[in-house]
Amino acid sequence: MSNIEKIYSYIDAHQREACDLLSKLVQQASTQGNEQGVQAVVIQKLKSLGLEVDVWDPEYSVLATHPYFVPSRINYAGSPNVVGTLRGAGGGRSIILNGHIDVVPEGDRTKWSDDPFSGILKNGRVYGRGTTDMKGGNVSMMFALESLLRSGIKLKGDVIFHSVIEEESGGVGTLATLISGYKADAALIPEPTNMKLFIKQQGSMWFRVSVEGRSAHGGTRYEGVSAIEKAVLVHQAILQLEAKRNARITDPLYKGIPIPVPINMGKIQGGSWPSSVADLVTIEGRIGVAPEEEMKAVKEELGACLRDLCKQDPWLNEHPPKLEFFGAQWVPNSLSENHPFAQTVRSAFGEVYGKPVKIEASPWGTDGGLLAKVGGIPTLVIGPGETKMAHYPDEYIEVSEMIRAAKVFSRVLIDWCGTTAS
Amino acid sequence: MSNIEKIYSYIDAHQREACDLLSKLVQQASTQGNEQGVQAVVIQKLKSLGLEVDVWDPEYSVLATHPYFVPSRINYAGSPNVVGTLRGAGGGRSIILNGHIDVVPEGDRTKWSDDPFSGILKNGRVYGRGTTDMKGGNVSMMFALESLLRSGIKLKGDVIFHSVIEEESGGVGTLATLISGYKADAALIPEPTNMKLFIKQQGSMWFRVSVEGRSAHGGTRYEGVSAIEKAVLVHQAILQLEAKRNARITDPLYKGIPIPVPINMGKIQGGSWPSSVADLVTIEGRIGVAPEEEMKAVKEELGACLRDLCKQDPWLNEHPPKLEFFGAQWVPNSLSENHPFAQTVRSAFGEVYGKPVKIEASPWGTDGGLLAKVGGIPTLVIGPGETKMAHYPDEYIEVSEMIRAAKVFSRVLIDWCGTTAS
Repeated sequence: MSNIEKIYSYIDAHQREACDLLSKLVQQASTQGNEQGVQAVVIQKLKSLGLEVDVWDPEYSVLATHPYFVPSRINYAGSPNVVGTLRGAGGGRSIILNGHIDVVPEGDRTKWSDDPFSGILKNGRVYGRGTTDMKGGNVSMMFALESLLRSGIKLKGDVIFHSVIEEESGGVGTLATLISGYKADAALIPEPTNMKLFIKQQGSMWFRVSVEGRSAHGGTRYEGVSAIEKAVLVHQAILQLEAKRNARITDPLYKGIPIPVPINMGKIQGGSWPSSVADLVTIEGRIGVAPEEEMKAVKEELGACLRDLCKQDPWLNEHPPKLEFFGAQWVPNSLSENHPFAQTVRSAFGEVYGKPVKIEASPWGTDGGLLAKVGGIPTLVIGPGETKMAHYPDEYIEVSEMIRAAKVFSRVLIDWCGTTAS
Repeated sequence: MSNIEKIYSYIDAHQREACDLLSKLVQQASTQGNEQGVQAVVIQKLKSLGLEVDVWDPEYSVLATHPYFVPSRINYAGSPNVVGTLRGAGGGRSIILNGHIDVVPEGDRTKWSDDPFSGILKNGRVYGRGTTDMKGGNVSMMFALESLLRSGIKLKGDVIFHSVIEEESGGVGTLATLISGYKADAALIPEPTNMKLFIKQQGSMWFRVSVEGRSAHGGTRYEGVSAIEKAVLVHQAILQLEAKRNARITDPLYKGIPIPVPINMGKIQGGSWPSSVADLVTIEGRIGVAPEEEMKAVKEELGACLRDLCKQDPWLNEHPPKLEFFGAQWVPNSLSENHPFAQTVRSAFGEVYGKPVKIEASPWGTDGGLLAKVGGIPTLVIGPGETKMAHYPDEYIEVSEMIRAAKVFSRVLIDWCGTTAS
């Protein structure tokens, strides 16, 4: 039996254990600020595989001095970041396996068929918030590592496993690993790409627009100015900006994606009384940054869009909406499909799937931008699960896809890091 | 000195006391649920004038059986309703003087020059939430009553003074006085009309539209459906309905009023995360009901407007917005300008002001509809203060207007109720 045959047969024989691990991870609801329970499961797993494990709560004061830090909260105490290191025999290329362990809130619970954190296995799928985004991918990575170790294969290069917090809020966890000095010759992030290879990832930023009105009795509403009506103008102007920005995208990788660089207005809030004219409305959203764009330029374009709108409306001209960027940002990233690491991943995929991998540019941000821009690490994103399941009720992952991904990742580890003669 | 001369000279001589009473009333911030303090001031005043005073917390179980009851809360304990009765000598027409004592919230405190509940007297104006809407008018009525009593004038008809709660939330206080049997041959409500005579009052209802979307990751927002975008369609459809309803208004009394029967969308709320597509948005508002309209027909028209919108949008067609009427309603009202009570008020105004009163239809609801429809009481609305100040920062009332109103009201009491020979 070749090494590869040994690994694949280990993976096939232990699918149930992989599912159980995923269920355990999902059952620890790891929304922002609640990551301790899930990281305990990760730590136990990494230690059982013999990795050196480093656990620490990122420190605000340390992060605060970094130019790429965007504070998502004022304190990270009780939210541990985890890095496991498997030392190689030497002489090989190192790799970071990076996965975030935080999940977005479950949303309207009534829209879920089971408890959002059930981790239940049904019809070949594991269900629950985070199965796809991205605890499933994390399990694929851990399972790949396990299959190598249990098959007695020794890698030459180091493997550094990141189980990071705060990806959903802008990447503080990954930034903290870089500040701590965890770097490598390449990095792989198994975000849910449905096993397409995302060589480019869109960046994004959160923004808030505060729109002022003037209050009045609703019965004489014409004596006030409705902040809701003015917010509708802002909403429309931002949709027009989205159309304009996307019309510019010519990268063939974005072909077929309806809105390559979306601007999502996700939250609206304003007014305090049905019979009064609303005097303040806020819109909060996320603006996509194309892989080659500078974040600063995007901020300026959104600001200019609002200033243009003000020229068309006397009230807004005198009461310009306030624009802030807050809470979260994801740095865009791009790697050539001919980079040696990309070639390694493409070949590994081809072997497992028997066809070439689809190469695309991701419509969303990952921590890959930080690994590349801050760490200087060539980074690729490929993982099991479909984006359309992420952030959605009844989120699930196909077990068979998680297993196939583990095979691809084990192959990447062998080919990239190299193995010692056994 | 004639009776009238005596009264007017008493009023002119005691302006300062009237201002002090208004300040005391304003300093008791009587937003919904906090009416006890202000009613204590009213009770003391009415007792000092020798009225029989009835004080009770309206009971939900009693109200609940009434067809015009719209629950604004589940419990009215601690929110007393007050009625003071001045028995006449007999043989005259009785009158209700009705004023609400509740005020709307102060809104954004930073927009106020002084504390919203300062009751401060500056440059001939008293400032604070409720000065105009409508504690100033209440003081005019109490002051009119005081001027008669202190001038030794004895009325033939009874005077029933209502100091009611919940007008701002739909009239539970006035409904409770009617259920308790307090009725009269006419009623006067000194809401802030800037001393125009409002023979018609617009009714209104609160409504809530819940607009459904489908959540998704903001980066692939095209895989979801934004409840905010759909709520914008609802907002526009409702503005179009407002235009259509107002184009129908031909009553010359509404001439010059920009939107006779407004639909105010006062509150919007939806979405929970900037990077997710919003799956639910609610809009809360107030729809005006023309004096001759049936409330039921207006409800049906708003429902039909939303159904028509659904026909134009496949998503809305499958996920029709939910329409509810909740919390508050004001019944419309109309009285002929030639009704004997209207003639009495018109002549009293003409005498004090030296010119004919302006007759208009109000763009907002009052408790007048309940007094008329439930109590069968001919009701008119006229009072000091300008509507545009109501529900607005730096609300104030001109003291001189409050004083002139007191003179008009004292004259109305004499002419309507009749006096015994002294």
